[in-house]
Amino acid sequence: MKIFKNGGVAAPKGFKANGVAAGIKRSGKRDLALVVSDCPAVSAAVYTKNSVKAAPLLVSQKHLRDHQAQAIVANSGNANCFTGKAGMTCALRTTETIGKLLGLPKEKVVVASTGIIGRPLPFGKIQNAAKGLVQGLRAGGGKKAAEAILTTDLKEKTIAVQVNLGGKTVTIGACAKGSGMIAPDMATMLAFITTDAAISAPMLQKALRYANERSFNSITVDGCMSTNDMAVVLANGVAQNKKIVSTGKDFDVFTNALTHVCLDLAKKIVLDGEGATKFIDIRISGGKTHAQAQKAGLAIANSILVKTAAFGSNPNWGRVAAAVGSLGIAGVTEDTLKIKFSDFARKDITITVNLNKGRATATVYTCDLSYDYVKINGEYN
Amino acid sequence: MKIFKNGGVAAPKGFKANGVAAGIKRSGKRDLALVVSDCPAVSAAVYTKNSVKAAPLLVSQKHLRDHQAQAIVANSGNANCFTGKAGMTCALRTTETIGKLLGLPKEKVVVASTGIIGRPLPFGKIQNAAKGLVQGLRAGGGKKAAEAILTTDLKEKTIAVQVNLGGKTVTIGACAKGSGMIAPDMATMLAFITTDAAISAPMLQKALRYANERSFNSITVDGCMSTNDMAVVLANGVAQNKKIVSTGKDFDVFTNALTHVCLDLAKKIVLDGEGATKFIDIRISGGKTHAQAQKAGLAIANSILVKTAAFGSNPNWGRVAAAVGSLGIAGVTEDTLKIKFSDFARKDITITVNLNKGRATATVYTCDLSYDYVKINGEYN
Repeated sequence: MKIFKNGGVAAPKGFKANGVAAGIKRSGKRDLALVVSDCPAVSAAVYTKNSVKAAPLLVSQKHLRDHQAQAIVANSGNANCFTGKAGMTCALRTTETIGKLLGLPKEKVVVASTGIIGRPLPFGKIQNAAKGLVQGLRAGGGKKAAEAILTTDLKEKTIAVQVNLGGKTVTIGACAKGSGMIAPDMATMLAFITTDAAISAPMLQKALRYANERSFNSITVDGCMSTNDMAVVLANGVAQNKKIVSTGKDFDVFTNALTHVCLDLAKKIVLDGEGATKFIDIRISGGKTHAQAQKAGLAIANSILVKTAAFGSNPNWGRVAAAVGSLGIAGVTEDTLKIKFSDFARKDITITVNLNKGRATATVYTCDLSYDYVKINGEYN
Repeated sequence: MKIFKNGGVAAPKGFKANGVAAGIKRSGKRDLALVVSDCPAVSAAVYTKNSVKAAPLLVSQKHLRDHQAQAIVANSGNANCFTGKAGMTCALRTTETIGKLLGLPKEKVVVASTGIIGRPLPFGKIQNAAKGLVQGLRAGGGKKAAEAILTTDLKEKTIAVQVNLGGKTVTIGACAKGSGMIAPDMATMLAFITTDAAISAPMLQKALRYANERSFNSITVDGCMSTNDMAVVLANGVAQNKKIVSTGKDFDVFTNALTHVCLDLAKKIVLDGEGATKFIDIRISGGKTHAQAQKAGLAIANSILVKTAAFGSNPNWGRVAAAVGSLGIAGVTEDTLKIKFSDFARKDITITVNLNKGRATATVYTCDLSYDYVKINGEYN
């Protein structure tokens, strides 16, 4: 697998991207992104499990029901959540406007938003910027698109990888934004992934589920679940590999590559977590199931006692034991639990826990909880 | 109901208490408490649901199996958790030593610990202090006992109430310690309750369960579950009321009084939460069940986004909506959820949420998350 650190959503063949400043962000920075495939693409997506879902998420779920999509439009600076009927209209009109300019029905356009909650998204600004956004689409536009979806993220997050599928070079490119707040708002994770692989929609969804479970679902910054989280992948088949329609070697190679892409972005999201000063790698072994091991890892990762201990460079296995114990897993006691720490003074910390209940493993990533987290989220006025 | 703000565990008839400095705390403050009934008492208790349980908790569970107890001995400064066989031996020997001095079998003695985790509890210090502890037992010793169970708590927490049961005055007294850390340790909640009411063990347990659900189980400081949490009540019948052996008017009066006592202590624990600058009262209505309403309240109370917003005096209903939504309750959406805030600039904040799913209500109490919380828990070295 070849890895391109500065890849992005326009790296695979047949994709273009752009990002412009539509004036939604007060800072005047880029806030409207577009990713387009030159030809029809199959799609797969995973969404937040929050029962309060933002308007763009509801619209995208509807548009992706047939697993066909050709464009993703996303704005930052406003989450278009808790915005009532007007919010739904705005999300729909965004897909219509972009679709018209691209010559596509609105159902082929995915829409996403991230930013402040509960304030009307100014559709006029999107409408005014739409033409320039489409005209500026370029094969080199991945970086601009990556910039345009950021909120309090300090850095854009992109990657691309290439694998060989039966003699054909297949590329996967992606960008993401992480758990950051902007003004009074909540964390949102957005990930847009593109590939020129030929793959059926069910296999693409299967691959994304696997990758998502081991990447975006294995990270946490503050344990808070957003209303806007979404990871979408478009596959346009331009690489002309033998179409992946079942499990097997090609599917495995593709899924591993996709997992690498998602995990790379997930780690970048943690590293760029609000106020983060440390990267914490939590390795659970001895789980009865992967789900149990992951649950234990997330309990540790979401313990603010563990997170503040990491911030203070104070290894404290009592807090780790209490976090795991709080799950109430029968037989997980003082006698069975094995906990190890790497050097807590370093920027990268590893916490290793053996549950001694079985053979399943899971790895979870998080960051510490610092004064700056409290500052960013408490004093944003 | 008469309320005595400066009451305590020795307020009911036939109870004595004491607290001494055994040298377990480095500060030299009181760290060993004893509560004793002059005559046999029935008991009820609730414990942490953490699967990792401290040695004293395991010993007390065993001793309370017959619902008979006459004394509670508790130390602060050391949690006696993750201390292996030596820890179990130490907890057992503590009950033996105190039992011998009181002329009671060890099974009549409840033991509790709170403080640092994973370090051997120096039994020698308890042994040396035991005689003085017993000799100093007084009807006015409730305050000393309340002091001796504190860790990072800033204030001792006591209360007593009196109710009339069929012409007899029945008193309930109590002390508690809250969610504070001392050195590298975790939050622990201990509550010791005494009463001179005549009540059967099953009715006492039923009353405690009710009171506990609406008080200690309805508060959270940092969402972290301790290995040592315990609430114990002893009832010695000295008030000579007609023994409560079934539900009915007397049981209701007693249960309401007990709930008042527990809720008073629970609120004091929140007010004295680490680094707390605000008291947050979360009122949920429209739940399908009380459990659902309580779960929604706790999800809000444990959201560090909500807690930091409170610290920064920034009312943010997006964060509240996301916290409730994260429970994934079907039908709880943007359209159904009603959220109201009191003035966020004040020290006491009320968050009112209507789930619109039914008629059940619940109230949950928490505090904000401040720089000082991070300081206390990150920089304790």
